[in-house]
Amino acid sequence: MHEQRVDTVRRNLARRDLEQMLVCDPRSIQYLTGAYVEPGERFLGLVITPDAEPTLVLNALFTAPGDAACAVRAFTDTDDPLALVEELCNADAPLGCDKNLPARFLLPLMERGAAAGFVLASDAVDDARAHKDAAEQDFMRAASATNDAAMGRFRQLVREGVTEADVAGQLEGIYRELGAQGHSFTPIVSFGANAADPHHEPDDTPLAPGDVVLFDVGCRQDEYCSDMTRTFVFGEPTPKQREVHDTVRRANEAARALVAPGVRFCDIDAAARNVIDEAGYGPYFTHRLGHQIGLDVHEPGDVSSAHDAPVEAGMIFSIEPGIYLPGEFGVRIEDLVLVTEDGCEVLNSYPREIDTIG
Amino acid sequence: MHEQRVDTVRRNLARRDLEQMLVCDPRSIQYLTGAYVEPGERFLGLVITPDAEPTLVLNALFTAPGDAACAVRAFTDTDDPLALVEELCNADAPLGCDKNLPARFLLPLMERGAAAGFVLASDAVDDARAHKDAAEQDFMRAASATNDAAMGRFRQLVREGVTEADVAGQLEGIYRELGAQGHSFTPIVSFGANAADPHHEPDDTPLAPGDVVLFDVGCRQDEYCSDMTRTFVFGEPTPKQREVHDTVRRANEAARALVAPGVRFCDIDAAARNVIDEAGYGPYFTHRLGHQIGLDVHEPGDVSSAHDAPVEAGMIFSIEPGIYLPGEFGVRIEDLVLVTEDGCEVLNSYPREIDTIG
Repeated sequence: MHEQRVDTVRRNLARRDLEQMLVCDPRSIQYLTGAYVEPGERFLGLVITPDAEPTLVLNALFTAPGDAACAVRAFTDTDDPLALVEELCNADAPLGCDKNLPARFLLPLMERGAAAGFVLASDAVDDARAHKDAAEQDFMRAASATNDAAMGRFRQLVREGVTEADVAGQLEGIYRELGAQGHSFTPIVSFGANAADPHHEPDDTPLAPGDVVLFDVGCRQDEYCSDMTRTFVFGEPTPKQREVHDTVRRANEAARALVAPGVRFCDIDAAARNVIDEAGYGPYFTHRLGHQIGLDVHEPGDVSSAHDAPVEAGMIFSIEPGIYLPGEFGVRIEDLVLVTEDGCEVLNSYPREIDTIG
Repeated sequence: MHEQRVDTVRRNLARRDLEQMLVCDPRSIQYLTGAYVEPGERFLGLVITPDAEPTLVLNALFTAPGDAACAVRAFTDTDDPLALVEELCNADAPLGCDKNLPARFLLPLMERGAAAGFVLASDAVDDARAHKDAAEQDFMRAASATNDAAMGRFRQLVREGVTEADVAGQLEGIYRELGAQGHSFTPIVSFGANAADPHHEPDDTPLAPGDVVLFDVGCRQDEYCSDMTRTFVFGEPTPKQREVHDTVRRANEAARALVAPGVRFCDIDAAARNVIDEAGYGPYFTHRLGHQIGLDVHEPGDVSSAHDAPVEAGMIFSIEPGIYLPGEFGVRIEDLVLVTEDGCEVLNSYPREIDTIG
């Protein structure tokens, strides 16, 4: 499996006239070798060349699993890892660089002349990762099933006077009880006007009657990520809350209904945006419609007006329209969809209708 | 305060014949402006030029606080943030680059010719950050005082049959009760042989009699980080556990005793390493002695044989010798020290002597 993935990357590189690449995204390395290491500030890189086995340049503090699909060159805190990279690369050929390769490694490699040019080549790996195989699709289904089950439990934590931070602090334990490894990202729990900030961080705001309650949450299970948003109302919704919630729900539905191989990402974004525009809330939908997801919670290739490539079978991405009314409240409804041969499979089944708590 | 810090960076740049810099480390931006944003995969950059106010190029999804010491240029998910950077930079002068600037932004900026050369210039900011002012020193003292208090509470969680993950899951709540914002890094809780892996991640290993119990933990409080390690024994220590623990404790002590302005980082590392070498455990101390710390839990300029600069008053770093015996157990004892005018102040006061639980 890992060998096939590396071959796909080599083919993708060849199409860009590249034959070698330095991969440094920890999840890309996991995808290509089975070894997952978060190196912090230390160097981590997988060097892919035309013939040799991919080689992981790894600080000796970390260990690759015995069955990792790569050779390993270890270095210590006082060694120079870039010398190892230099040794593995062909200095007479250009080097494909991963999207996250930081300047503190890239600029010195350039200065040393480790390759004949440095080219951004993340797509070679990211395109491979974007097409989930059958096993990956199953992992993604399972992680989203756990997220559906968890949302039902999270809803029960909502009661008057509880704070966002109180609620947020209890989510990880529930995910673990349900078999997940933990969060796939820092959860967003927003009450009332806080929900008008799409990236609000849970704080000491207590829940009050009439508040919307927004959960944007996901777990990591068997290494793969889920990500879903639901917005509840604590108490009887106002007419405006109902109207906004209904608009967002219809935007989510319109986008999901359009997803099929060949449809462009930008048109899926537009389908949701049109519903919100027509309801008069266009200026309050302030972000892209969605993002791809897999081993990372945000993977490249977003669902936005700036991305006019067609979606393809095996891709998985979020559909997450929102309306954010500063000082009032916000609503977002998010699901993950898997593109199938003739449409899409929605990985989340938690109800989307407005749900009043209390 | 922020203006002074930016002036220090400008002076540091001038010493490298640079007059402009792109800072992208979120904590460096916080240090220089007061605005803290974690942009994920989105662009975030602070452009420092000779005369104008520093300008933050920020996705409109995020907001800088009203009193942030910078101008803001916002962009949306469909705009091109690098065009804004290009506009702010002088294309005829070289640009200093932050250590973490990722290839997906750096390589396109190079291709566009946004500057006349790209130079790694993190030191200009990192040197400023390494010298903590009086207010920062107080924040660091407070965060470590909380960590000392928390360690006493964590010790009480240790009882037969509890798992590492059980214990680790309870730490954040305790930090919050004590007034911290949360963890400063993913906590390490290791039982028995797991402690022989310096970066072990808490798993379902249950505690058994005779196990060492290693806590490497820290909190973030008022934005500043603490970081401390203690290693307990659950039950009566074996002679070997006592010997190893005592060796590590003496290594920690020898290094702390040496810290004063003018002493080189590498000599502090050597002081601890010599104690461990002389006890015959040299090959089992597999990492650098320590790292600087402040707004980030790991800041550049490590305490290792590869770093021969002298320490200076106001610097804060960890002293964390360890001995790791694969398949048996590991011991690490870590404290933070602040370099004073004539020695150092140890920010942690939690006892270092071997402590048996149960």
